[in-house]
Amino acid sequence: MLELLPMQVDAGSVATSINYVWVLTVTFLIFFMHAGFAMLEAGQVRSKNVANQLTKNMLTWSVGVIMFFLVGATVEAVIAGVTTGGNYSLFAIFSPESTLGWVDWLFGAVFAMTAATIVSGAVAGRMKLRAYVTYTIFLAGVIYPVVTGLTWAGGALDAFGFHDFAGGMIVHGMGGIAGLTAAAIVGPRLDRFNDDGSANVIPGHSITFAVLGTLILCFGWYGFNVGTAAAPIAGDATALADFGYVGRVALTTTLGMAAGALGAAGVATLKTGKVDTLYVANGMLAGLVGITSNTDIITWWAALVIGGLAGAQLPIVFELVEKYLKIDDVCAVFPVHGSAGVLGALLVGIPIFTVPGAGVSLVNQVVFVAVIAGWTILATALVFGVLKAMGQIRVSREHELDGLDVSEHGVDTYPEFGRPDTATDGGVP
Amino acid sequence: MLELLPMQVDAGSVATSINYVWVLTVTFLIFFMHAGFAMLEAGQVRSKNVANQLTKNMLTWSVGVIMFFLVGATVEAVIAGVTTGGNYSLFAIFSPESTLGWVDWLFGAVFAMTAATIVSGAVAGRMKLRAYVTYTIFLAGVIYPVVTGLTWAGGALDAFGFHDFAGGMIVHGMGGIAGLTAAAIVGPRLDRFNDDGSANVIPGHSITFAVLGTLILCFGWYGFNVGTAAAPIAGDATALADFGYVGRVALTTTLGMAAGALGAAGVATLKTGKVDTLYVANGMLAGLVGITSNTDIITWWAALVIGGLAGAQLPIVFELVEKYLKIDDVCAVFPVHGSAGVLGALLVGIPIFTVPGAGVSLVNQVVFVAVIAGWTILATALVFGVLKAMGQIRVSREHELDGLDVSEHGVDTYPEFGRPDTATDGGVP
Amino acid sequence: MLELLPMQVDAGSVATSINYVWVLTVTFLIFFMHAGFAMLEAGQVRSKNVANQLTKNMLTWSVGVIMFFLVGATVEAVIAGVTTGGNYSLFAIFSPESTLGWVDWLFGAVFAMTAATIVSGAVAGRMKLRAYVTYTIFLAGVIYPVVTGLTWAGGALDAFGFHDFAGGMIVHGMGGIAGLTAAAIVGPRLDRFNDDGSANVIPGHSITFAVLGTLILCFGWYGFNVGTAAAPIAGDATALADFGYVGRVALTTTLGMAAGALGAAGVATLKTGKVDTLYVANGMLAGLVGITSNTDIITWWAALVIGGLAGAQLPIVFELVEKYLKIDDVCAVFPVHGSAGVLGALLVGIPIFTVPGAGVSLVNQVVFVAVIAGWTILATALVFGVLKAMGQIRVSREHELDGLDVSEHGVDTYPEFGRPDTATDGGVP
Repeated sequence: MLELLPMQVDAGSVATSINYVWVLTVTFLIFFMHAGFAMLEAGQVRSKNVANQLTKNMLTWSVGVIMFFLVGATVEAVIAGVTTGGNYSLFAIFSPESTLGWVDWLFGAVFAMTAATIVSGAVAGRMKLRAYVTYTIFLAGVIYPVVTGLTWAGGALDAFGFHDFAGGMIVHGMGGIAGLTAAAIVGPRLDRFNDDGSANVIPGHSITFAVLGTLILCFGWYGFNVGTAAAPIAGDATALADFGYVGRVALTTTLGMAAGALGAAGVATLKTGKVDTLYVANGMLAGLVGITSNTDIITWWAALVIGGLAGAQLPIVFELVEKYLKIDDVCAVFPVHGSAGVLGALLVGIPIFTVPGAGVSLVNQVVFVAVIAGWTILATALVFGVLKAMGQIRVSREHELDGLDVSEHGVDTYPEFGRPDTATDGGVP
Repeated sequence: MLELLPMQVDAGSVATSINYVWVLTVTFLIFFMHAGFAMLEAGQVRSKNVANQLTKNMLTWSVGVIMFFLVGATVEAVIAGVTTGGNYSLFAIFSPESTLGWVDWLFGAVFAMTAATIVSGAVAGRMKLRAYVTYTIFLAGVIYPVVTGLTWAGGALDAFGFHDFAGGMIVHGMGGIAGLTAAAIVGPRLDRFNDDGSANVIPGHSITFAVLGTLILCFGWYGFNVGTAAAPIAGDATALADFGYVGRVALTTTLGMAAGALGAAGVATLKTGKVDTLYVANGMLAGLVGITSNTDIITWWAALVIGGLAGAQLPIVFELVEKYLKIDDVCAVFPVHGSAGVLGALLVGIPIFTVPGAGVSLVNQVVFVAVIAGWTILATALVFGVLKAMGQIRVSREHELDGLDVSEHGVDTYPEFGRPDTATDGGVP
Repeated sequence: MLELLPMQVDAGSVATSINYVWVLTVTFLIFFMHAGFAMLEAGQVRSKNVANQLTKNMLTWSVGVIMFFLVGATVEAVIAGVTTGGNYSLFAIFSPESTLGWVDWLFGAVFAMTAATIVSGAVAGRMKLRAYVTYTIFLAGVIYPVVTGLTWAGGALDAFGFHDFAGGMIVHGMGGIAGLTAAAIVGPRLDRFNDDGSANVIPGHSITFAVLGTLILCFGWYGFNVGTAAAPIAGDATALADFGYVGRVALTTTLGMAAGALGAAGVATLKTGKVDTLYVANGMLAGLVGITSNTDIITWWAALVIGGLAGAQLPIVFELVEKYLKIDDVCAVFPVHGSAGVLGALLVGIPIFTVPGAGVSLVNQVVFVAVIAGWTILATALVFGVLKAMGQIRVSREHELDGLDVSEHGVDTYPEFGRPDTATDGGVP
């Protein structure tokens, strides 16, 4: 029986409450992915560079989110307006109609910072902290906001037409491509490649931290994908968000993740006869990246196929990048985020994978991917190119050998382990 | 004042939205327990077997969830239908009426995968990866779905009558008993027992990771128990989930967890004079297991008693398993999940512990526990027995001595720590 | 179009459902902060004291939450009633009108346990476990409940007037001041200070764990602050919580955290020329503490200023405590929680930082801070003073040198690392 009680519950505020309980919850989950990236990347670098990697992760968020508020939000609005001949409001972010507008901003910010932090994994172990932070300022203030201005915020590419549900290309593809570009410009770590062009493996210091980071990322990814599915981003905040396809997103995200692990593990095992732990972990992530742009409209079996392919390409693309491009992508961010993101954004253009009536154009997807990739490479190359020309991109040979923890931060991440007599009770570290 | 605004808010979709915001949130929390299990187990194994343990955890989810979708969901429906003479629908999982049906499936899947991953902790350090994965396939596809088919899905035991609110027996008891069975069949690690039958302690490599895992599990457990309390699993998705006893579940879960830590710490301290850190940690978990089947109907003081007993039995049962059964249950999964789960499922049959009118039959609980335990032992013994007969259950003595990380995965989890000269900059690992 | 369907959805239960979905979700997030504190503190202590620190963290929750239920809730109600001449009900906690009252209690308990666990970071490495646990019993049962009884629960300070939105002073300031008091009484670790009064740095054993803990805490803090913003704590549970300023809280929490990192990093870099990783991490937390009391009423730029100042004071206050007070505050809990909490609670009294009409009195804030600080110092000094007089506060010199893991817990946290031959396969640890 329906009883209507005389209390402060009107339909609009009920919808607002439900919507924002959800948006806030998933925003927090996506924020937590920074802990995931921090652990994943820390685990995959040498112990002498761990604190540096962790510092970069924390500064990515701290510097980036301030820039994205002070500059990025406005750039996004301007780009969206200018490229479609529409209106835009400068500084609207500083005095939204309702403070809920700031929740919407934060929901956008956690996606932006995900793209930003991906880059740090590619350039680990040899880039100057100030160079990395400088790039983060540009990425959060301009480079990423241009991407979202053109797309989700309603700019030219949105008018043209494309499908990227939760950022498989806009966030992950962009971050992975930026990372590869940055790694190419800063150059490989010392001894990563021999004079004859052959590659050396420089193992990370802790698979445990890397897997912990992976599982934190998978947790946060449910917020990323399923969160977006029921977020009221496209409508009026007082209308209830649509729960019509949230189940599809939950299922395809789950299956894509699982298939990615199996795809990567399978190919890696074919190559070496052993099930490489880091390929299983990164395969879960590649599978997730692969289905992030299309999770709302693919069938359950397409999630297995696309996730599986996104995982399977990981060991292959990683080797191609290493052997033929000679780029030292330390944490494999290009195969995990870049090529997997591109793959997913293209495969959704093939009708067999989608539910009836999805109507995604492969041609448009190609154009969309090309524009995002082109802009990202161009802008990233420009920032790091200038830094390189100024001699400000790379630490000295001595600092790299000593490790960036000591040289850039003055700390030893594990003073009691690994190296003798670096610290004793009461001694100076 | 109540204002009814002319917008897209009808009572049914309001209920659906609230219900699924909640179910999705707690489903993500329960998924995150995989990070907890991974860290808890990794911390309790030797450093040479850490990557193996982590790989098993990731593959449990990846292989298991695909099996549970492709096969398990259907097996569950068939068992429920067949054992009650009712109808069942084959393949309904592949085309649910609403995609929300897939959210319901995922909510079930995270419980299933919890049961599955428990087993890996018991058999650490000596089982072949392929044997473990084979078992996971059977567990996710058949063994666990038979259990839930008989019970929560409405099969014969449900008709008979029993009380297991959130899986104290169905999930944890089942997983703990399966783990003990598997550990018995695969045999103890080398040097775990001496020729005279006395036992050696093989300490885990990191208490920090173990405690981290414990606290992640406690976090996820709120989703497990309190999540179930307000989940609309028993009713129509368009009716609002009942919040009538969610507070009791939140309270008894909290007190049971706390009392479990004190119970285990107390008994351990009586035995050795010291407060063992891992007993405190595992005691929190045993306390949680103990109240998981009964959390909705016990009094606050019963939560302290049952949680305390579940913790107190942990050091005792662990020693019994070691001394008398000579089973090498590496991560103590039987005392933490098995015996604690059985204890809780039985104690809820004693009226003094429950709220008035709970009406749980101790006899029925005994039958329920016996059926689940019997089936689990039988099915697990069958799978591992066949694998053993085929010579496929255990790694070679050399591989076990070298560690499973190197022999099964070709990796070194901590190349810079613990062992000299395993890796240098630019060197092959 | 609005359709009113004849089903079990009445306005009151809709409001209750939404409110409690939110309160439970954020309560779980705040609970998870214990994992954050455990990792942050474990990372900042020596490897020989890690298990001790972790045990303290688990027992803080386990002992504390039971005390807060059995005693603390009633003490809080009594203090609130007695100091305002109002009524109070003894034992109401044991039989609330609805079990939702227990959710409200748990929401309060996670704040209480946050205050409690802060103390453990200050006294790491030399306090007897029983002394620490004894203090936790008093803190959870009396000391903290007196504070909330006087304030949030409606006691004398509430009648007097003050502003502390989510516990910047009540939780963090209180915890930080208690920690400093405790550290002063127990005395510094061996060799922390030289005979000439100069200080030695004793580095923690793992920056990775410390940063992991930091990021977990930041994640949980969104629950802490934003959670409080939409929690129906002040009103009838059947009225919908207010979402009017939740966006402001989300924004200022984000900006305060980010500015705290930059403030601390900036000052630390000015002092040493290097960007200290732990200052960045603890700066994020200090920034969060700084805006926790005022997050609902400050402007966006005030969040940058207050967060930045809270971060900037961290390296300075840490040095003052070390150099002039000669107190060994191991995990910097006073500068992170204490002085940052006081700073934020005072700055909100300056009108320029707040939105129009906030109307916070600086005089009242000074009185509020002084009362909380005075009571905390007094009560903490009393408990630890008595323990010290009984010779029960500090472990022996030998135990401290051996490390508390061995002497108090009989364990070795990392048996395979750092020290030779402490464990071999099959050997006794």
